[in-house]
Amino acid sequence: MDDKLKKLLENDRFAAFIGIELVEMEPGYAVAKMAIVENHLNGVDMIQGGAIFTLADFAFAAAANASGQITVGINANIAYFQASKGKLLIAEAKEIAVSQKLAHYNVEVYNEKKDYIAQVSFTGYKRSGKTDA
Amino acid sequence: MDDKLKKLLENDRFAAFIGIELVEMEPGYAVAKMAIVENHLNGVDMIQGGAIFTLADFAFAAAANASGQITVGINANIAYFQASKGKLLIAEAKEIAVSQKLAHYNVEVYNEKKDYIAQVSFTGYKRSGKTDA
Amino acid sequence: MDDKLKKLLENDRFAAFIGIELVEMEPGYAVAKMAIVENHLNGVDMIQGGAIFTLADFAFAAAANASGQITVGINANIAYFQASKGKLLIAEAKEIAVSQKLAHYNVEVYNEKKDYIAQVSFTGYKRSGKTDA
Amino acid sequence: MDDKLKKLLENDRFAAFIGIELVEMEPGYAVAKMAIVENHLNGVDMIQGGAIFTLADFAFAAAANASGQITVGINANIAYFQASKGKLLIAEAKEIAVSQKLAHYNVEVYNEKKDYIAQVSFTGYKRSGKTDA
Repeated sequence: MDDKLKKLLENDRFAAFIGIELVEMEPGYAVAKMAIVENHLNGVDMIQGGAIFTLADFAFAAAANASGQITVGINANIAYFQASKGKLLIAEAKEIAVSQKLAHYNVEVYNEKKDYIAQVSFTGYKRSGKTDA
Repeated sequence: MDDKLKKLLENDRFAAFIGIELVEMEPGYAVAKMAIVENHLNGVDMIQGGAIFTLADFAFAAAANASGQITVGINANIAYFQASKGKLLIAEAKEIAVSQKLAHYNVEVYNEKKDYIAQVSFTGYKRSGKTDA
Repeated sequence: MDDKLKKLLENDRFAAFIGIELVEMEPGYAVAKMAIVENHLNGVDMIQGGAIFTLADFAFAAAANASGQITVGINANIAYFQASKGKLLIAEAKEIAVSQKLAHYNVEVYNEKKDYIAQVSFTGYKRSGKTDA
Repeated sequence: MDDKLKKLLENDRFAAFIGIELVEMEPGYAVAKMAIVENHLNGVDMIQGGAIFTLADFAFAAAANASGQITVGINANIAYFQASKGKLLIAEAKEIAVSQKLAHYNVEVYNEKKDYIAQVSFTGYKRSGKTDA
């Protein structure tokens, strides 16, 4: 992994704060995981939607930035399928289309039992800066 | 505020963990805020998209559950407008349509300078349980 | 109205084909309408979701292009609130945020009884061409 | 194909009016196509976004209703990837998750050259009626 990119991802303090770890990354593809702890739960003891979204967002950022150009999310759509009963969430991000300024990703979020928990579609905008600049 | 509902919101451990506070709440309407700290930042020193989303999600949950029926988000769409340069984010959730089983909310996220940072549209599904049950 | 812009909108053959008319337009704002006929219905006698979406899309395009720069939709999110029982649908598009390359619009679709039928959020990308070029 | 379901789809007058044809259908899966004609174009000679959306919506409806329960779209998110330069658009709908009352579909829209034109994610709500009732 490119040093600057690695730093950029390690420097995501919000992701680190809530316990997200990068598992795998290459241009256009990334996997991240989050071991579920009590601090991820909402008032009805489900994993808070924002925690699920953040995991997906981090996987998207890793996959998109691995292409070498800083990419910021401009739009995201999340669909929640079921409450997770597992102890781990995994997000897998895949590039599905890319043009000069825009990049589109689908992220699937599932748990260790392979229950499909949520899907997030991201549209990213490529800024002029390089991740290794 | 209804005691059970208050408990439900105070019991959102993820929102509390990342520093979200409820400002105002009534059926179909709620305001929440989050003072920005370093732990909210991503690798390029912007507020992480997931932190913004979570603030909006909490405001939606407060507004929707204030109607007395447990409402879970099934879909959310976030559009990011600009990076915030402020020290505070505020999310204001408003019900825009409701039917027997579904509820639709728009949440506007802005900072203390009234810069408009993001908009999130939520579709919620009303579960059979009551918040005061 | 600018002649080239007028032509651009009149030249939307799909909108014309399905009976959409422009009611009002200024930079960042537009209203369009569609009188409901049998050809707009789906298999369960509701107005087809695509007809509602197209009306909203046309209002968005009018409002966005009225600013003088060709703007193409890159993302849209539609939430359906209720089946319309009226004879007319009206879409009102409003710019909610804009930056150098992107523009964000909300479009509200209602009928002549003011029943709120659907909401569509658009993200548009400003191409380099001018509408009056 | 179930007779009542066939009738329901053939009875989609909007889809028929704009030239959409069903290619394939089974529970949770469907393919539809649309030969591009001048009436599908917008003011800048691209296929109007609403025409693309409608094709995807019809494929979703076919796939979802093929399961035997009337399913109406409550939310859809479309991302446009590139302008199509072909003469045909094809939409392929796949169920990705389903629960008692909700169904989630992804629809991919491409042309005869396999250029990937758009992706639409649908959330459907299962009404109590049966398609064969």
